[in-house]
Amino acid sequence: MPDVTQTRIPPGVIDLGVGHPSLELLPLEPLHQAALHRLSQGDPSFLQYGVESGDGYFRTELAGFLSRHYGFALGPEELFITSGVSQALDLICTVFTRPGQVVFVEEPTYFLSLGIFRDHHLEVVAIPTDENGLILEALEVALKQHQPAFLYTIPTFQNPTGTTLSQERRERLVELSQQYGFLIVADEVYQLLHYYQPPPPSLGRFADRAGVLSLGSFSKILAPGLRLGWIQAAPHRLQALAQSGLVASGGGLNPFASAVVRSALELGLLEPYLQKLRSVYRSRLEAMLQALRQEGLEPRYLPQGGYFLWLELDPSFETQRLLEQAIKEGVRYQPGARFSNQGRLAHALRLCLAYYDIPDLLEGVRRLAGVLRVVAAAAGKGHCIE
Amino acid sequence: MPDVTQTRIPPGVIDLGVGHPSLELLPLEPLHQAALHRLSQGDPSFLQYGVESGDGYFRTELAGFLSRHYGFALGPEELFITSGVSQALDLICTVFTRPGQVVFVEEPTYFLSLGIFRDHHLEVVAIPTDENGLILEALEVALKQHQPAFLYTIPTFQNPTGTTLSQERRERLVELSQQYGFLIVADEVYQLLHYYQPPPPSLGRFADRAGVLSLGSFSKILAPGLRLGWIQAAPHRLQALAQSGLVASGGGLNPFASAVVRSALELGLLEPYLQKLRSVYRSRLEAMLQALRQEGLEPRYLPQGGYFLWLELDPSFETQRLLEQAIKEGVRYQPGARFSNQGRLAHALRLCLAYYDIPDLLEGVRRLAGVLRVVAAAAGKGHCIE
Repeated sequence: MPDVTQTRIPPGVIDLGVGHPSLELLPLEPLHQAALHRLSQGDPSFLQYGVESGDGYFRTELAGFLSRHYGFALGPEELFITSGVSQALDLICTVFTRPGQVVFVEEPTYFLSLGIFRDHHLEVVAIPTDENGLILEALEVALKQHQPAFLYTIPTFQNPTGTTLSQERRERLVELSQQYGFLIVADEVYQLLHYYQPPPPSLGRFADRAGVLSLGSFSKILAPGLRLGWIQAAPHRLQALAQSGLVASGGGLNPFASAVVRSALELGLLEPYLQKLRSVYRSRLEAMLQALRQEGLEPRYLPQGGYFLWLELDPSFETQRLLEQAIKEGVRYQPGARFSNQGRLAHALRLCLAYYDIPDLLEGVRRLAGVLRVVAAAAGKGHCIE
Repeated sequence: MPDVTQTRIPPGVIDLGVGHPSLELLPLEPLHQAALHRLSQGDPSFLQYGVESGDGYFRTELAGFLSRHYGFALGPEELFITSGVSQALDLICTVFTRPGQVVFVEEPTYFLSLGIFRDHHLEVVAIPTDENGLILEALEVALKQHQPAFLYTIPTFQNPTGTTLSQERRERLVELSQQYGFLIVADEVYQLLHYYQPPPPSLGRFADRAGVLSLGSFSKILAPGLRLGWIQAAPHRLQALAQSGLVASGGGLNPFASAVVRSALELGLLEPYLQKLRSVYRSRLEAMLQALRQEGLEPRYLPQGGYFLWLELDPSFETQRLLEQAIKEGVRYQPGARFSNQGRLAHALRLCLAYYDIPDLLEGVRRLAGVLRVVAAAAGKGHCIE
């Protein structure tokens, strides 16, 4: 059978490393309804080469949606439609960096962003983080040594740690960006996936007074297959994106999906779906936490939203090396070293709460704990967590 | 009213420069049918992160379609799904070039490709063309001076000239690519838009013995707003694209549109639509040719397909400078200098036959001829064409 999805899991394995939504949660019915609505309006404009910044009706709907959820009001002129955050990052590198420049990332950071920076011949410098996100004192030290084109940060429910940058640090970060003159590229795909209190407002709130490019996506709140996202920023920065070679030639990046999601927004289909996701993921997070704790595997941080749990094991563990054994026992995870551009964090691992339902999550945790117990025993240790 | 399309035409102006399909020809009804079909199958896989090379079912359908139309058989493993040719070019530059390298283009060439090459910090060297496309003697001279990462060519119904690379030259070009070790990036978006005899087979026919990347798209045969295209090449080259940072992170480039067009192919909706386009565009080409000839404006070449007619005026004309006057008279065109990376071809212009229906095309030609007559008379010349 031909492959359709990027999710490749060996048979019999519960892959807690996969950062994808559950297949069975994907909103086939709402998108069916939205597509029907859009395609029966008699207006084929969305099938033409699209306006560079993205369908104006869609941006208007999206601006309304974000204004309700982001904690501040924003307008369609502050939005540029993308084919998702990866594509947005790629385009931002094209437009706002030159080969050989430095970009700052968090340590740990979303590991697949590193491939995009590599493709643009950028030098990556990692800034440490703690339970409140990026450590700004460390950032300031690095700023005295480097002039980064931008800082790439995942401020809310971070990938992989699940932590959130505190409000105080957000304000100080923006000051530093103004003082040192670097862009903040904020990957905020988990911003709306809060399971308790809403997080601080999106960093895009500061876009009018600082160089913030706030990246959002429908991948985590609707469907990754749409390849639909947005950049919220000051209009003059979006203008530079619209003048890139790619966009000047091909026009707006995803008119067809934009038009369908415009209908989903107009028909009010996104709000209840988002509520459902929050409720399902909250149950999964709590079930997984409970199971981990029962096994003595307390995560390093306690996430209030998003997809991920981050475990730091005793420093003697090497999670990359353990992976083979884990797969034999029917479980996978993402080894910590992948989230460091220097291969650090070798004793850590990332688990995802989104992909599996609760029975599989519990079974996955059980298998993982079994593997770690065996390894700890062989090393003469009674515990796994440092 | 918010902007939806990239087509921006001043009121009252007939813009023969726009290289877009007609709004009223866009296939709203077939895509409605296809979307309904796909979204009512009960399988949400196409909403997930997609497999890197593109939905396997879609690639299988597409391989069958292309095998029927391209003049040779090809399989799904030779296809990589893109978000259109502009995105494909951008990705190819990312993967197959390094900043500072040389790429060859045709003179004239598709002007908006130059912005993509600029964004990748490439040096562009132009190779002259004639009525049979790229002049291979000139290419060989340039190959003795430069080592290009690739040659960007539009071999069939070229943009802007409408010419087609002869079969003999195709074979020689492939030999040169093997001998000198450069990739051929063939932009073949007009390959299926033949209005008389089919053109020589796609350059992708040589992909197994030479470094050919054949770029195709649904923009000109279905709808640009889908942002859906493909690269046909040897599987190991496609593998390099799949390992790019962008694709490794975001997965396949357009799963949602792929799934809808998969249904359009399965339901046999593309063939009759393509036949209709050929028939409508042939009438438009013939009407436009007749109107131009009546005005004494014989195009430089006689296109057998595609979107464009190329006029070379008397060398005293400067079509960029004339544009303002033409717009006052209610007509636009693309000035020739845009199609040369060196600003040559200032006396030429490109007209598009696809966007308007016949009455508007005829009126546009009438207005253009009027402007040129006035300018010729003012310069004391009795003719416009060199």
